[in-house]
Amino acid sequence: MNDLSWAATQLAARKPDHSLPQGLYTDPRAFDFDLDAIYARSWLMAGLECELPTAGSRLALTIGKWPVLIVRDKTGEIRAFHNSCSHRGSILCEAGHGSAPRLICPYHRWTYGLDGSLLAAGRMPADFNKGEHSLRPVPLRRVAGAIFICLADDPPEFDSFGQQFEAYAGPLNFANLKLAATDLMVEEANWKLVMENARECYHCPTGHPELGQSFPVQSAQDTVDRDFVEAMDRLGLPHAGVEGSWWQLARFALNAGCSSISMDGQPVCSRPLTTLNGGNVGSLRWAIDPHLFAHATGDHVFVFSCMPVGPRETHVFSRWYVHKDAEEGRDYQIPALKELWLKTNLQDKELAENNHRGVLSPGYRPGPYSLEAERLVTRFADWYCQSAKDYVASHG
Amino acid sequence: MNDLSWAATQLAARKPDHSLPQGLYTDPRAFDFDLDAIYARSWLMAGLECELPTAGSRLALTIGKWPVLIVRDKTGEIRAFHNSCSHRGSILCEAGHGSAPRLICPYHRWTYGLDGSLLAAGRMPADFNKGEHSLRPVPLRRVAGAIFICLADDPPEFDSFGQQFEAYAGPLNFANLKLAATDLMVEEANWKLVMENARECYHCPTGHPELGQSFPVQSAQDTVDRDFVEAMDRLGLPHAGVEGSWWQLARFALNAGCSSISMDGQPVCSRPLTTLNGGNVGSLRWAIDPHLFAHATGDHVFVFSCMPVGPRETHVFSRWYVHKDAEEGRDYQIPALKELWLKTNLQDKELAENNHRGVLSPGYRPGPYSLEAERLVTRFADWYCQSAKDYVASHG
Amino acid sequence: MNDLSWAATQLAARKPDHSLPQGLYTDPRAFDFDLDAIYARSWLMAGLECELPTAGSRLALTIGKWPVLIVRDKTGEIRAFHNSCSHRGSILCEAGHGSAPRLICPYHRWTYGLDGSLLAAGRMPADFNKGEHSLRPVPLRRVAGAIFICLADDPPEFDSFGQQFEAYAGPLNFANLKLAATDLMVEEANWKLVMENARECYHCPTGHPELGQSFPVQSAQDTVDRDFVEAMDRLGLPHAGVEGSWWQLARFALNAGCSSISMDGQPVCSRPLTTLNGGNVGSLRWAIDPHLFAHATGDHVFVFSCMPVGPRETHVFSRWYVHKDAEEGRDYQIPALKELWLKTNLQDKELAENNHRGVLSPGYRPGPYSLEAERLVTRFADWYCQSAKDYVASHG
Repeated sequence: MNDLSWAATQLAARKPDHSLPQGLYTDPRAFDFDLDAIYARSWLMAGLECELPTAGSRLALTIGKWPVLIVRDKTGEIRAFHNSCSHRGSILCEAGHGSAPRLICPYHRWTYGLDGSLLAAGRMPADFNKGEHSLRPVPLRRVAGAIFICLADDPPEFDSFGQQFEAYAGPLNFANLKLAATDLMVEEANWKLVMENARECYHCPTGHPELGQSFPVQSAQDTVDRDFVEAMDRLGLPHAGVEGSWWQLARFALNAGCSSISMDGQPVCSRPLTTLNGGNVGSLRWAIDPHLFAHATGDHVFVFSCMPVGPRETHVFSRWYVHKDAEEGRDYQIPALKELWLKTNLQDKELAENNHRGVLSPGYRPGPYSLEAERLVTRFADWYCQSAKDYVASHG
Repeated sequence: MNDLSWAATQLAARKPDHSLPQGLYTDPRAFDFDLDAIYARSWLMAGLECELPTAGSRLALTIGKWPVLIVRDKTGEIRAFHNSCSHRGSILCEAGHGSAPRLICPYHRWTYGLDGSLLAAGRMPADFNKGEHSLRPVPLRRVAGAIFICLADDPPEFDSFGQQFEAYAGPLNFANLKLAATDLMVEEANWKLVMENARECYHCPTGHPELGQSFPVQSAQDTVDRDFVEAMDRLGLPHAGVEGSWWQLARFALNAGCSSISMDGQPVCSRPLTTLNGGNVGSLRWAIDPHLFAHATGDHVFVFSCMPVGPRETHVFSRWYVHKDAEEGRDYQIPALKELWLKTNLQDKELAENNHRGVLSPGYRPGPYSLEAERLVTRFADWYCQSAKDYVASHG
Repeated sequence: MNDLSWAATQLAARKPDHSLPQGLYTDPRAFDFDLDAIYARSWLMAGLECELPTAGSRLALTIGKWPVLIVRDKTGEIRAFHNSCSHRGSILCEAGHGSAPRLICPYHRWTYGLDGSLLAAGRMPADFNKGEHSLRPVPLRRVAGAIFICLADDPPEFDSFGQQFEAYAGPLNFANLKLAATDLMVEEANWKLVMENARECYHCPTGHPELGQSFPVQSAQDTVDRDFVEAMDRLGLPHAGVEGSWWQLARFALNAGCSSISMDGQPVCSRPLTTLNGGNVGSLRWAIDPHLFAHATGDHVFVFSCMPVGPRETHVFSRWYVHKDAEEGRDYQIPALKELWLKTNLQDKELAENNHRGVLSPGYRPGPYSLEAERLVTRFADWYCQSAKDYVASHG
């Protein structure tokens, strides 16, 4: 209650088109507030369906401090549950991927079906009603081979995103992918500074020399490349930037001669996702507030997901996907697949950590965003503040 | 004050025979509350008298964050003090065992007698009254060779436990023991989850295959073994389960053919504590809320003590005692002595940590205890809630 | 607001001439309170001018959690700024020494002059007013070759200290020094316990056998040494102890036969700072509340600076200066230069950490300072309480 009034005061002090008031970046209270007001109430992209290939496949992940379990059942349905046993609350499955026909709690062997129903519980009384102890479901949506979850019982509107995502991502056939590599980077900075960094390329020309090889870092990416536009139109691939309150979507041209976002702009996997336009379909970029951006080029998909784990500690999860028939060693090498984004993320980690250190200064004042170079940062900050205010208003 | 009202709200939400409300396991406020309401007001078993063999022997230990010092004086008396110098508060003695005829503060050499009286303090004025600066005593009781302390000036009733403990443990002659080995395990789980785990064997059949060799894990341990009962009755060794508000005590039969709780059920020390019944006296188990369980078999004593050190961090101290005349290398080997409980504790650590991770879930709801398999967990949770409510009522 | 009332309650409980109430040492709230009430409002010695030898030389340091930047401009002027870019708050310069003609933010290359004015900011709109985005200055004073800063816009009175410091330190010509060595020690103790330890030698006879070689540890240092007094008077070097509310200054004789504070009492640098009295000018000691003491002997200057980084974590920065023309390897060896104070600081670290552990005890009661042996500790505690009360009164 007290924290809500603290948050309301901070939010009321927000200066339009400027970075946030200091406390929202640095105060320990912002951590719990952001988890409850933002991460617990937003659609998050949990992964791709290809990560759950068969009945019983599962993926356990942590949203902030909250464990979630995603499983595919025998009918092919994919469901999400809170990863917490109905008995005494133990997690059912360790984080990561796995597979089993049933979900058995490692503590006392309470056993659930893939639909979350409690099938068995030993040494309970005769009148124990298993029907009252199913796993608690988490809202989930599937679109274009991707999986989205929301911890809130009343999630935000999804379909306007879903329709656009289907149109833009559908032709790339994400169902045909496989997860080829992952990375976890720990950043000593508030998650909002990590995301602000991720939503602008104002810092790219000096901060990311390698990314600049393929990525149009010198300008806003909506600069029109006539040849690219005509090629995409000819193929029926949508490209114009579209956006809703919590998402953005666009297909844009890479630098001349480049068909992938990689060290040299060339594909990092020789088994293409698409042969349209000779495999050069620019990059499909989507971004999901609060946590994600992703790039799908003709050869691979890269996903960046940001999770707060403390007031000044953020986990950045990176995932690389390639065609499911690509063979490691022959069609792609993991070090080459990961090289560009590992370098880029490490550069960004240093920038975000420097940013946090400086924001702690009593001399910090919210500064002006460049509305040209930091349009998406401004959008992110506005979305954050509006979502936070809505939360305060409905819980105050 | 605020925290008390928070605690009162949590406690009021307790559902009978169910695990605790989420906040009592996961909220940082529960840590300070539990230290003050529970650990500072309960009798705790500090160790055995045999750890302080001679005048000047001492044992310094930490209760939560509070340093305590136990010393034997020249008359054989054992006393406990707050381990904090009356000058500027420095600890007098590092944690662990030691021995010296006086207690000399390492900071400014203020010097105390073994009875806590200040004997010398340099460079203080002529009118300085040493009599006002004795060490502050901590209530202490000795029974059957064991030492119990309570940080409260008005400790709970002790004697009904003391009489029973004397009757059950006396024949084993704890005064003849020596401390042979210790272990500290750090668990990333709230201490109450560690203790709940320690108070049931519902998880043992799958969780502890090694313990199951000697320990009757398949059922509640009060299953009657007629032969054992008759043998104990014949020898005059009490065995029926007895309990008070904060303690339980019972002597029970081990699995057929076993006379010790060990990897193979055979003694881990060849110098027995007792020769009654050929050394097979089952196990004398005692449990002290909030922190301890112990098992005394015919060959050794194992003590498990749980100390909260943070909202999600718990120290588990293990101690193994054998007959004081047993010789290491000849009569017992330390690795063999420790093996079973080290394995068992490590298995329990993983279970308790999984439990904590899952209880963090927004999907967590207090779940039903099995009144047959989790009777002692239910007792522990009930005792905890009642003690906490009493504290709130008397400090509100 | 709540924390101020907490602090006021603690301060009201202070017993004269006794150590502080427990909460001021151990409560997490004391950390933020002390940073705001004490460290943000006090003059602190940032370093010596010799550390910024030329135009563009800079020194970045952290006061608690607050980054500060000190630069020398082309006119020789030395200025301090909050080390936080006016754009999005990133730090401009990493901690430590450096040199560059301009201050360029590593994030988006906003570029500042050495006077803090914003010279360039890319991709900002045509009507962007650079004049509104200068770096925010921090009050700074220079005296006798030393640099003092205060984060408050209304710093405490400085000149009475400045005049005395000029008189006492001027003859040693600090402008002719160079920084020869540094050390950072992390202590798990509240900063006030670190400073109390640093302000008395009651613990020295047993705690610091090495320091006792040269340093008069057996008594208050104002014991008069007639020969030394006469020599200093003859040379016109002031020596009598003088002090103001937040500082003390004195020149005192070392032990017989000693001319430096070192393992053997002999110079650790063969290139002297002064040849007055054959290089033996005792030690000029100055102390600045809340963070510093320093000793200047005829051969080198040692500075001890204490920075709180958490409720129970303190950084102790040590710096050693020698004559700027001294050559490492020939005139001085770094291990020998550092040896005494490294040993002494390590001994003090253990004492301060023991002190903190003991102060956590529920048996802790503020104890009596020895007004003879702990006069400066009493002064420090009184100054702390008065400063804290003043802060509460003006912010309540």
